[in-house]
Amino acid sequence: MGTLRFTKMHGLGNDFVLVNGFRERIERDMAELARRLCDRRFGVGSDGLIFLLPSQVADLKMRMFNPDGSEAEMCGNGIRCLARLAYEEGLVQGRVIRVETLAGIVVPELILEGDKVSQVRVDMGEPRFFRREIPMLGEGDTAIEAPLEVNGEIWEATCLSMGNPHCVIFVPRIEEAPVTELGPKLEYHPLFPQRTNVEFIEVQNPGEIKMRVWERGAGETLACGSGACAAVVASALTGRTKRKVVVHLPAGDLQIEWAANNHVFMSGPAARVFEGLYYLET
Amino acid sequence: MGTLRFTKMHGLGNDFVLVNGFRERIERDMAELARRLCDRRFGVGSDGLIFLLPSQVADLKMRMFNPDGSEAEMCGNGIRCLARLAYEEGLVQGRVIRVETLAGIVVPELILEGDKVSQVRVDMGEPRFFRREIPMLGEGDTAIEAPLEVNGEIWEATCLSMGNPHCVIFVPRIEEAPVTELGPKLEYHPLFPQRTNVEFIEVQNPGEIKMRVWERGAGETLACGSGACAAVVASALTGRTKRKVVVHLPAGDLQIEWAANNHVFMSGPAARVFEGLYYLET
Repeated sequence: MGTLRFTKMHGLGNDFVLVNGFRERIERDMAELARRLCDRRFGVGSDGLIFLLPSQVADLKMRMFNPDGSEAEMCGNGIRCLARLAYEEGLVQGRVIRVETLAGIVVPELILEGDKVSQVRVDMGEPRFFRREIPMLGEGDTAIEAPLEVNGEIWEATCLSMGNPHCVIFVPRIEEAPVTELGPKLEYHPLFPQRTNVEFIEVQNPGEIKMRVWERGAGETLACGSGACAAVVASALTGRTKRKVVVHLPAGDLQIEWAANNHVFMSGPAARVFEGLYYLET
Repeated sequence: MGTLRFTKMHGLGNDFVLVNGFRERIERDMAELARRLCDRRFGVGSDGLIFLLPSQVADLKMRMFNPDGSEAEMCGNGIRCLARLAYEEGLVQGRVIRVETLAGIVVPELILEGDKVSQVRVDMGEPRFFRREIPMLGEGDTAIEAPLEVNGEIWEATCLSMGNPHCVIFVPRIEEAPVTELGPKLEYHPLFPQRTNVEFIEVQNPGEIKMRVWERGAGETLACGSGACAAVVASALTGRTKRKVVVHLPAGDLQIEWAANNHVFMSGPAARVFEGLYYLET
């Protein structure tokens, strides 16, 4: 009977099934495997299926599939898990790992405590502010603290792209943020032709913010790596924080740094929950 | 680092983490383990955690915990999984297994195809019809095709206990059954002091019915073993079917037989999805 070895991991509650393609033979269609394995009752259950594969141009290749079988370009929480697993499985020796992804080569860096991986730092790329880059319609080149009308009410929003669109809203108290009410209205707001992610931010002090996120296509989620990056960029750009900020999310913290070279670096945990042996035939 | 071996199984989509307590040392509080392992993002993810343990009075003892850490008395879908695993792990030799549960000794029977377990048959006990046994308030000793008022509308219901309360409603077309609308209203109807499960049934022919179920405390679920038993008893009692009926559920079939000795027998599948090794410390 065919079996498939896997590792179940999560980054702040964003959870993944990872398959070591250096060791396991992937004889099946990856999209079909994703649909089966990601199912939370009939399969293993996760937000995505990640394959670690040999690469011609980097240390390894990441291919990530969503529960519906579509392929994802990249995922900040997912690549942290992949980096930890690649190191602990001995697929790479160094602390700095070059990973080929559909979004180009990404270079996660392991932060060790003794021989244990405590955090993973990922270069999440550069923010883009022009409306045509986000993309976002409306007047003006950018949307920094720009008025946004929703059902006759005006909200102040700072919008940018981290490779995907983000709309950041500052609120006085995160507990009272209208995430599930305003989130979907902004996601589908006519100014965002490709829809948008929405981050609600409470600034605690220049080095700490609290965030809740409404993810495009997913609703409110526990964590969104690119959303945390966008939130810190928006906070620093508008003078609310420094450029190095701890982001408090419902399931834990991310450290975000908007570096002098304009790249945004995200550091966060990657938890290894269990190892599994999945029965391909039942 | 401490680890815990487990097996992930499901019965028609009702899914369980099973731990072989003959092999694994359970050093932790079982309720706490259930809360951790049943979590679908931070743990393994399931509707319950089942321990297979030595028994003084039967072949083995079943202890089952809900995701909130409370202990469940018995579960038809869960005991099918336990029976298959006990057999395949060599904890029992015969096809008939005596299992000690909080609801007394239950005797699942394995149906084999070659050396493979194809189905498990479980004696689900005897139906009870008196209102005080269900429990259910209102006039008359029983509630067979009895009128039930909900928001001024009258529904015809047949109510009984299979150890837990059930309210069976026959509908012309299962696709149009008002499960999510009427289900919660009947669950919390003032006539049911301990609330009730609600089964919506379309009779296809005297040997087949279709069922959708609203489970007390859980909402609409994919399968409910005692609900399928209650549905067949209600169908046979009111002359709609024979006493041996195939129940079509969203994720597959159960065979239910209301035998001459008044016991109700349920036969159904138990799927083994994956084996796991959970990290008790992370």
